[in-house]
Amino acid sequence: MSKPTWLHENFEHTGSAFGLRVTRKLDEVQSPFQKIEIWESTDWGKVMLIDGAMMVTTRDNFFYHEMMAHAPLYTHADPKDVVIIGGGDCGTLREVLRHPGVQRAVQCDIDEQVTRMAEKYFPELCESNNDPRATVMFDDGIAYMANAAPESVDVIIVDSTDPVGPAEGLFNRAFYANCLKALRPGGLLVQQSESPLALMDLILDMRRAMQDAGFASFRTLPFPQPCYPTGWWSCTIAAREPRDLTRFREADAEAKPFDTQYYTAAIHRGALAMPPIMAKALGE
Amino acid sequence: MSKPTWLHENFEHTGSAFGLRVTRKLDEVQSPFQKIEIWESTDWGKVMLIDGAMMVTTRDNFFYHEMMAHAPLYTHADPKDVVIIGGGDCGTLREVLRHPGVQRAVQCDIDEQVTRMAEKYFPELCESNNDPRATVMFDDGIAYMANAAPESVDVIIVDSTDPVGPAEGLFNRAFYANCLKALRPGGLLVQQSESPLALMDLILDMRRAMQDAGFASFRTLPFPQPCYPTGWWSCTIAAREPRDLTRFREADAEAKPFDTQYYTAAIHRGALAMPPIMAKALGE
Repeated sequence: MSKPTWLHENFEHTGSAFGLRVTRKLDEVQSPFQKIEIWESTDWGKVMLIDGAMMVTTRDNFFYHEMMAHAPLYTHADPKDVVIIGGGDCGTLREVLRHPGVQRAVQCDIDEQVTRMAEKYFPELCESNNDPRATVMFDDGIAYMANAAPESVDVIIVDSTDPVGPAEGLFNRAFYANCLKALRPGGLLVQQSESPLALMDLILDMRRAMQDAGFASFRTLPFPQPCYPTGWWSCTIAAREPRDLTRFREADAEAKPFDTQYYTAAIHRGALAMPPIMAKALGE
Repeated sequence: MSKPTWLHENFEHTGSAFGLRVTRKLDEVQSPFQKIEIWESTDWGKVMLIDGAMMVTTRDNFFYHEMMAHAPLYTHADPKDVVIIGGGDCGTLREVLRHPGVQRAVQCDIDEQVTRMAEKYFPELCESNNDPRATVMFDDGIAYMANAAPESVDVIIVDSTDPVGPAEGLFNRAFYANCLKALRPGGLLVQQSESPLALMDLILDMRRAMQDAGFASFRTLPFPQPCYPTGWWSCTIAAREPRDLTRFREADAEAKPFDTQYYTAAIHRGALAMPPIMAKALGE
């Protein structure tokens, strides 16, 4: 084992940095889209970086994956068809498939290498990839949503990297308009929406683009995510029709037939309590 | 203005790091107890480091100070006398004095230089230091609690650095026993209790020492705090008598006569929703 060193990621847009103590680089591949690295850390398990940005660690990915899946799925009345755009590490797919009511979950990530690396270094995240309800495909998520059958999906989860590089096209009006068309009545879109402390402008831009595309209601839920900028992260849920997104299937969430490390009905209620600093920035 | 550089703090005990982009060191003083530095950052305002550990930034200190003050004060039935041990930056004192019912608040930090630096570089945190209800003193907090009159205090807030160096004696049974003796019936002790993701052993040790000293009930509340290890932090409230610490003066908190950036009654309720990963580690 190598002598530990510190791997720091400096976030230019927030003026802050996160780092992990690592022992060695386990793997690196340059895919047609991006550079993927896997490091071994002393305390956080394995770490995946894409183009130098920390994406997943063994230790802390549960916050993000549980909130991205369970918050929208328990907010929807009866989600049967779920599409995940991005999500190549398969952690969101695993959480989605914990819901017995889900009949079909399609994961469409542009980069097959992300999933191959996840299978090798984060096998626990990929444990549901062979579920008969799952389709793991590698294609352009923008094209996939443009070609999706109208009113065929209940929940779309956009689990992408930041809005630069390959993921840029997942944060604009044209993409959201295609998502809206693909949603059935009652349908929801959820997207990771960066830090509510430092990146509120991005959340506002995203919500404006969703609104321009025709989405009717919005709610941004904060949660901890240590390895992302500022350690305080969020997802934004958008609804096809006007509705109160602070209401969710609380009784079902209380009785969820699976274990979690972070998400519970009470945590979901807590994430709906918007701190004044967020409410003010969002004009709510 | 100097060219920005990155100031990284590597947290040996969590294997993670936090950093800020800084432009220059504004001040540095070696007090009899510790080295205090002030840096100017590009996006987080000013930063205070004590012995190399980030203590306060202009931008993110509100999470910590609001939770350390308002969570225990709204959990107590009628807090009139408050003692803050440590807290030399005066941010907790400012929040405590927002409560009109508080008649007396004593801040006892061992290091006068911390307060002198706060007055100069974080004047907004010190804006209540001249409140007639406030006493800002510089003395050994351990001795202060050992000599405190029995049953004279309603809430003790231990707002200290980590349990190494000058603050080590604020995390043991002897100190807690003196706190217990100083509390009136209904009294509460609250202490910053490190990261619930990475430092659960410390929280368990702290709660065991509080229990050995005679405290009867405990509750650990998580909250975001970007500049501390993992960005997910906590405070632990201990009660003199057995009681349900998930109950607090919700109506008073809803109608609080002051503004906050993070704390609200709903955020307090949210912080009482213990994620399974914490509940499991705490055996709850």
